Amino acid sequence: MTTESTLVDAALRSWKLGADRISKFFAEQTEEQLQRELAPGRNRLIYILGHLTAVNDAMLPLLGFGPRLHPAWDDIFVKNPDGTAVKVPSGEEVQRAWKEVDAALQTHFAALTPAQWIEKHASVSVDDFAREPHRNRFSVLLSRIGHMQQHLGQAVLAEPRK
Amino acid sequence: MTTESTLVDAALRSWKLGADRISKFFAEQTEEQLQRELAPGRNRLIYILGHLTAVNDAMLPLLGFGPRLHPAWDDIFVKNPDGTAVKVPSGEEVQRAWKEVDAALQTHFAALTPAQWIEKHASVSVDDFAREPHRNRFSVLLSRIGHMQQHLGQAVLAEPRK
Repeated sequence: MTTESTLVDAALRSWKLGADRISKFFAEQTEEQLQRELAPGRNRLIYILGHLTAVNDAMLPLLGFGPRLHPAWDDIFVKNPDGTAVKVPSGEEVQRAWKEVDAALQTHFAALTPAQWIEKHASVSVDDFAREPHRNRFSVLLSRIGHMQQHLGQAVLAEPRK
Repeated sequence: MTTESTLVDAALRSWKLGADRISKFFAEQTEEQLQRELAPGRNRLIYILGHLTAVNDAMLPLLGFGPRLHPAWDDIFVKNPDGTAVKVPSGEEVQRAWKEVDAALQTHFAALTPAQWIEKHASVSVDDFAREPHRNRFSVLLSRIGHMQQHLGQAVLAEPRK
């Protein structure tokens, strides 16, 4: 492997490690446990997984991979706080969507060359990108890895204290 | 910038973003607030910042930059849970150490070439590294960025609900 492909490989391993920890943590929760709040007045676990799914789903168009799988979920899990949506998908639906989105992303990730990783993402103009070349696909990847870790760190706090 | 240096630059920006968010969050806490638990029976904020400082401090020898600045802190903030140490440094001491460690790390980070980032870290043998070239400095960097995000996600939950 070249230096650049080794660097990309490290980030893709980091993504997979984080996503797999999330899959494992949530797969172990019952439907009832998914309805539990992190703390009184805080988000429920199902909201956190829906939020992670919606934010990652938005990476499909942002990285130029294609349309979102669940465009309607932004309203439920990103734009509005927990407890305000009239109808929230079931735990089973959210778990399935999480896995579908992650599988789609990882397939697209694996197909990019290092040179494609440092191309601009879809939310920055050509002019802005010329001035700010750090607004590339790779930065989005790293940012979303951090986002997953941040919310996983919170989700594990909902576990009963041993 | 070359592809490889753009990839490294993205990760260093991600580090700086995460570390700066932590500095800002903790700088806004009073000594009293630092003693607050995340939730009953959970870690105090001061323990989280001490933990992040100790784990990042250990990157100095792990990445070949030199000895640790606070070797004794592993016992207080990593090997033992919160509430067990006889004497814990004050909030002011922990805040100062956090900044010193981060400044030292960022200075060393900036001096590495992309080829040096994919060299082995100090905890893997030459033989193991030949088989597992992903056990490199860059992977340690990404892993610790995730570690910071995970604990920052938890720390913000200690903020009173607005």
